[in-house]
Amino acid sequence: MKLLEERIRKDGKIRGGGTVLKVGSFLNHQIDVDLYNEIGKEFFRLFGQDGVTKILTIEASGIGIACIAGQYFHVPVIFAKKSKTKNIDGEVYTASVQSFTHANIYTIMVEKEFIQPQDRVLLIDDFLANGAALDGLIQVVDQAGATLVGAGVCVEKAFQPGGERIRSRGVRVEALARVASMSEEEGVTFC
Amino acid sequence: MKLLEERIRKDGKIRGGGTVLKVGSFLNHQIDVDLYNEIGKEFFRLFGQDGVTKILTIEASGIGIACIAGQYFHVPVIFAKKSKTKNIDGEVYTASVQSFTHANIYTIMVEKEFIQPQDRVLLIDDFLANGAALDGLIQVVDQAGATLVGAGVCVEKAFQPGGERIRSRGVRVEALARVASMSEEEGVTFC
Repeated sequence: MKLLEERIRKDGKIRGGGTVLKVGSFLNHQIDVDLYNEIGKEFFRLFGQDGVTKILTIEASGIGIACIAGQYFHVPVIFAKKSKTKNIDGEVYTASVQSFTHANIYTIMVEKEFIQPQDRVLLIDDFLANGAALDGLIQVVDQAGATLVGAGVCVEKAFQPGGERIRSRGVRVEALARVASMSEEEGVTFC
Repeated sequence: MKLLEERIRKDGKIRGGGTVLKVGSFLNHQIDVDLYNEIGKEFFRLFGQDGVTKILTIEASGIGIACIAGQYFHVPVIFAKKSKTKNIDGEVYTASVQSFTHANIYTIMVEKEFIQPQDRVLLIDDFLANGAALDGLIQVVDQAGATLVGAGVCVEKAFQPGGERIRSRGVRVEALARVASMSEEEGVTFC
């Protein structure tokens, strides 16, 4: 998706010796809602013919993208929660996720009533790097006995192993911007 | 907002001896995007003439509502983050927030570059009860020296003190559904 690649080139910042791609000015801290809309349309172009009945994402950065995309699919959006709160009292699906960004392991959970065996689930998230978040969401879909339609991510760090590993299991993964390499000196190149 | 009140009556669940109003099937776990759109339109009807330049919310449940509303305002949406991640490296505004739902105290942060003194900020969140989250967001706006236009919340538990306390400081707070009382036996009544 050229629009997203151009925006990453223009406003993305590379930090941490070339390990962190910071897109907080438009994608996941401050949000350019018009850009989200174009992203939502693109996910619909890619997955709109696949009978999606639920969109599943993970808090926090995936929620806005999934909601905007959900307008095109006209299906409910579910976000997996990262901690047990007083607002969850039903039976839940859970999975463990190792976070690169936060450098910890956390449990995600989704109430069982929201994903049924007849559901066809599209996963949406902002980033794919090591694939830990998608792994957790795929576990939830599997536990529900639902059909995994695929995963739409905004930015894939294609030089990290998550995308290849998940695709090799037969999961359709569509990334709107695939980063081939990045460094603080030379910026970002895309696949 | 009758649509939201009716949905709470129909699908809301009261738990915890009448202290917890669970709306996870349509508002803050599974999301009815069409309902979010009506909520967004209503916030725009209420605040659309007030020169809003930024919408500020807090992760996680506020993000989707703020993004959908942001489409009507055509302004950037910022969500305050709840923990320090590798993706935040700039100067940040911070505030402490006591969570009722999670029974802990956490720090929220917003990168300083995203809110400037000339900004006119609308706060959006899903729930207002004790007002702790709004207090934190108001502190961020104050630290930025920006203008606080007001706060739009989906559900106010009007029998808890947050709304009255914040309004008494001169902040315009608009709640789309104001719960006067609730109990597991008799359900919800609205103001």
